[in-house]
Amino acid sequence: MCVVPSYLLPPPASLSLFGENCCGGIRYLSKHCAQRYTMIGDLLSKEQHDVALLQEVWSEKDFHVLKKKLGGTHPYSHYFKSGFFGSGLAVFSKHRIHDAFLYKYTLNGYPYMAHHGDWFGGKAVGKVLLNISGLAIHVFVTHLHAEYCREPDSYLPHRVVQAWELQNFIRHTSAGADVVILGGDLNMHPTDLGIRLLQSYTGLKDCYNETASFDGFEQGFTHITDNPFTHKQELIPFGGGIRIDYVFFKGSKSVDVSCESLSTTKGPVPGQPFPYSDHEALSTELELHPSEDGKGYSNQEKDCTTDKLSELVNIVTEARTEVKVGLHCAERMRYTAARTGIMGLALLLLELAIAAVPCFALGTEQPFPKASFYLLGALCFAILFCTTLLYIFYGMEVKALQGAEDQMRLALGSLQERLKAFPKGKYEGRSQTELDSRDPSTLEPDD
Amino acid sequence: MCVVPSYLLPPPASLSLFGENCCGGIRYLSKHCAQRYTMIGDLLSKEQHDVALLQEVWSEKDFHVLKKKLGGTHPYSHYFKSGFFGSGLAVFSKHRIHDAFLYKYTLNGYPYMAHHGDWFGGKAVGKVLLNISGLAIHVFVTHLHAEYCREPDSYLPHRVVQAWELQNFIRHTSAGADVVILGGDLNMHPTDLGIRLLQSYTGLKDCYNETASFDGFEQGFTHITDNPFTHKQELIPFGGGIRIDYVFFKGSKSVDVSCESLSTTKGPVPGQPFPYSDHEALSTELELHPSEDGKGYSNQEKDCTTDKLSELVNIVTEARTEVKVGLHCAERMRYTAARTGIMGLALLLLELAIAAVPCFALGTEQPFPKASFYLLGALCFAILFCTTLLYIFYGMEVKALQGAEDQMRLALGSLQERLKAFPKGKYEGRSQTELDSRDPSTLEPDD
Repeated sequence: MCVVPSYLLPPPASLSLFGENCCGGIRYLSKHCAQRYTMIGDLLSKEQHDVALLQEVWSEKDFHVLKKKLGGTHPYSHYFKSGFFGSGLAVFSKHRIHDAFLYKYTLNGYPYMAHHGDWFGGKAVGKVLLNISGLAIHVFVTHLHAEYCREPDSYLPHRVVQAWELQNFIRHTSAGADVVILGGDLNMHPTDLGIRLLQSYTGLKDCYNETASFDGFEQGFTHITDNPFTHKQELIPFGGGIRIDYVFFKGSKSVDVSCESLSTTKGPVPGQPFPYSDHEALSTELELHPSEDGKGYSNQEKDCTTDKLSELVNIVTEARTEVKVGLHCAERMRYTAARTGIMGLALLLLELAIAAVPCFALGTEQPFPKASFYLLGALCFAILFCTTLLYIFYGMEVKALQGAEDQMRLALGSLQERLKAFPKGKYEGRSQTELDSRDPSTLEPDD
Repeated sequence: MCVVPSYLLPPPASLSLFGENCCGGIRYLSKHCAQRYTMIGDLLSKEQHDVALLQEVWSEKDFHVLKKKLGGTHPYSHYFKSGFFGSGLAVFSKHRIHDAFLYKYTLNGYPYMAHHGDWFGGKAVGKVLLNISGLAIHVFVTHLHAEYCREPDSYLPHRVVQAWELQNFIRHTSAGADVVILGGDLNMHPTDLGIRLLQSYTGLKDCYNETASFDGFEQGFTHITDNPFTHKQELIPFGGGIRIDYVFFKGSKSVDVSCESLSTTKGPVPGQPFPYSDHEALSTELELHPSEDGKGYSNQEKDCTTDKLSELVNIVTEARTEVKVGLHCAERMRYTAARTGIMGLALLLLELAIAAVPCFALGTEQPFPKASFYLLGALCFAILFCTTLLYIFYGMEVKALQGAEDQMRLALGSLQERLKAFPKGKYEGRSQTELDSRDPSTLEPDD
C-alpha cells in the first residue's frame, strides 16, 4: 500500500548527456552525411552517455541508421515526428523511455521562405520521461527557428514566441519531475531575450555557467567560423564563433543537481577530414544528490527577492513588446495580401468586362488578343489564389501572436500581484522555484 | 519559510461550473446571434457560476460583448486564440486566472473541406489555472472535430488523435493540481473510443455518471432533434438526441471531489422563441472535501487491478488501430496527389513540346490553337500548384499520424511492463490514479 517517496530512494551518482545539432549543411554537403552519422554513432557507442539528444535529424533513414548502430548501448530511442520533414528531434537512451509528448510551436517562419526551410521542419519541443533508480527524469529536447540575419532579424518575434511556449511547456509539464533537463539548439546567444525568459521563468540553470570543469572552445562556442560546414561571413562579427547550443538543468524538492563537467567537441574528428556537424557537440556530466533538507534548491535560489521577480516582470514586458512589433508586421502583411488580392480581382473583372461588353472593346481594325486575354486571366487567378492563401496564413500568424501576447498579459498581472504582496513579507524567504514548483495559481488567494 | 501544504488549507465548499457550446448554427442563423449572446450573458449573470467554459465563440466581438456584460460577476476571462478564426474557446471566472496555456491539436480536418470549417477554427485544448482558497484548480476547456457522418466517419482518425493528445496534455500538465476539471464539446458519444481513452488514461470522472442529482433531458442529451438550430436528419438514428458535451473532474491526494448536481438547459428559453444554442448547456456543482486520509481517491479507485490496466491496454491498442487506418488513407491520398501532380507536369511538357517541336505540330491547314494552348497551360499549372500543396498537407498528416502511433506504441510498452509486474504483487493495492499521479516513469525501475 505504501508509496515510497522518490527522495527516499538512492539516486544515481551521475547522469551523462550528449547534445548535438547533427546535420546543418546536410543539404549542401550530402556526400559526407552518411559518413558523419557513422562518426556520430561511433562516438555515442564509445562514450556511452545515459542520454543523447539530437536535433536536425531530418531524415528518418538517418535515425534508423543510428538506432541500429546504437542497439547495444542505447536500446531505447524516440524520433519526434511533425511538420513535413519531421521535427528533426531524436532521443537515444540507455534507460527505458516511458512516455513521450510533443508540443509543436505555433509559429515557425513562413512556408514561402522555402530556402530557409524552417516552416517545413515542424519545429517543436519534445519531452521524454525516464525513470532512473526511482527518480522521475523529465528530459526535453528542442530546436528553435534559425537566425539568418541578426540585424534586422525578421524571425525574432517568432523565436520569442517559441521561447515563450518552450518555458510555458516546461513549467506546466514538469510539476511532477525530480530532475528537469533541457538540451538543444536554441539559435539564441546567451544574453538574448529568449534565453533570459526561459531561465528566469523556469529556474533552469545553464551547464556552461554552472559547471565545475569546462573543456572546449573559448566562451563555450558551439558554432564556429573554422567549421567547414559553416557560412563564415555570418559569424565574423561575433569574433570567431557563437554559443547557441545548450544543456539546462534543475533539481526539485527531493534532488539537488550539480554540473560536474561540460565539454564540447573541437572541430575536425581525429583521423577524419571534417567534424561531426556544423555545430560542436556538448557532453555533460550531472551529479544528483538527495536533497539534504528535503527541500532541494541550491543556496543561490533561496534568496528569491523582489529583485528577481522585478527582473522577470521586465523580461516578460520586453518579450511582450517584441511580440507586439511582430503583430504589427503580421497585420501589415495581412493587409497587403488583402489589398493585392482585391487588385487581382479588379483586374480580372476589368478583363472580363473588356471581353464581354462591346463598348469597352478595341477598335474593329485590331483582332481580339486572345493569347494576352488568357495569359492575363491566368495571372489574375494566380494572384487571387496566392493572396487568399497568404491572407489565411497571415490571419493565423496574427491570432498566434495575439494569443502569446494575451498569455503574457495574464502572466504579468499575476507576477505584479506577487510583487505587490512582497513588501508585506508574504512570500519573503520562499525561493522562486519553490513558488513556481506547483504553479503560479497557488501563490495568492484571490478572493 | 514554511510552505503550507495545500491540503491543510480549508477548501471551498463547492465549485459551480457552466459549460456551453455557444454558437453552432451561427453562420446560418446569424440574425439570432447577438440576441442569443445576450441571453447567455443574462443567464451567466443570474446563475453566477464560479467558472463558465464556452466553446464555438468564433467571433472575438461576441467574446467582448460577454466580457463587458459579465464584468461585474465574472471579472476574469480569457479567450484562446488559434487558427484563422480563433479556437472558439473562452473562459469566464469569478476567480483570478493566473496562467493560461493552449495546446493546438495536430490534426483537425482538411483546409479544402471549407464547408465543414473545422480546419480554420484551430481546434485546441486550453488550460487556465485558478487558485481558490489555496487550492490549485486546473481547468481545461476543449472542442473536438465535429462528426458530420457517423458511418463512415472520415474524420474518426483525426478525432482519435485529438482525444489522444487531449489525455496526454491533461496527464502531463496536471501533476501539480489539487482539482482537475475538463469541460467541452467532445463530439463523441459516451461509449466512443476517444471518451474511453480519455477516462481510462487520466482517471477523469464523468459528471453525468457521478452526479447525486440530475435534471435534464433523458440520457443527458445535449444535442437534440427538437432544437431549431439542429439538422434533424443527423440525429434521428439516435432516438431524439445524443450526449456529446461533458464535464469531467478528478481530485488529488489532498482533495476529494464529488458531483452534487448536474443539469442541462431544456430547449427554448422561457419567454424566448428559441434556445441559447444548438447544444444544451450544462451546469454542475462540485463539492470539494479535504481528503481524510491524506491520500484522496475515492474507494472505487483503490481497487486498481490488472483488469483496469488490461482495459487501458486494449483501449490504447484500439486507438492505435484506428490511427493506422487513418495513416493508410493519408498515405494513399498523398500518393494520389503525387500521381496527379506528375500527370499535370507530363501534360504541361507535352503541350510545350507540341508548341516548340515542329514534328509534333498540327498540319499547316490548321492554325495553331493559341487560346486552347494558354487555357490548357494554365490548367496544368493550377494542377501542379494544387497537388504540390496537397502533397505537403498530406505529408504533414502522415507525419502527425505516425507520431501519434509512435507515442501509443511507447505507452503500450510501458503499460505492458506494468501489467507483467502485477502478478508479482509489485503494484498491487496501488490505485491507477496513485500510479499515474506523478507520471508513468516512476512506475518501474528499468535497469
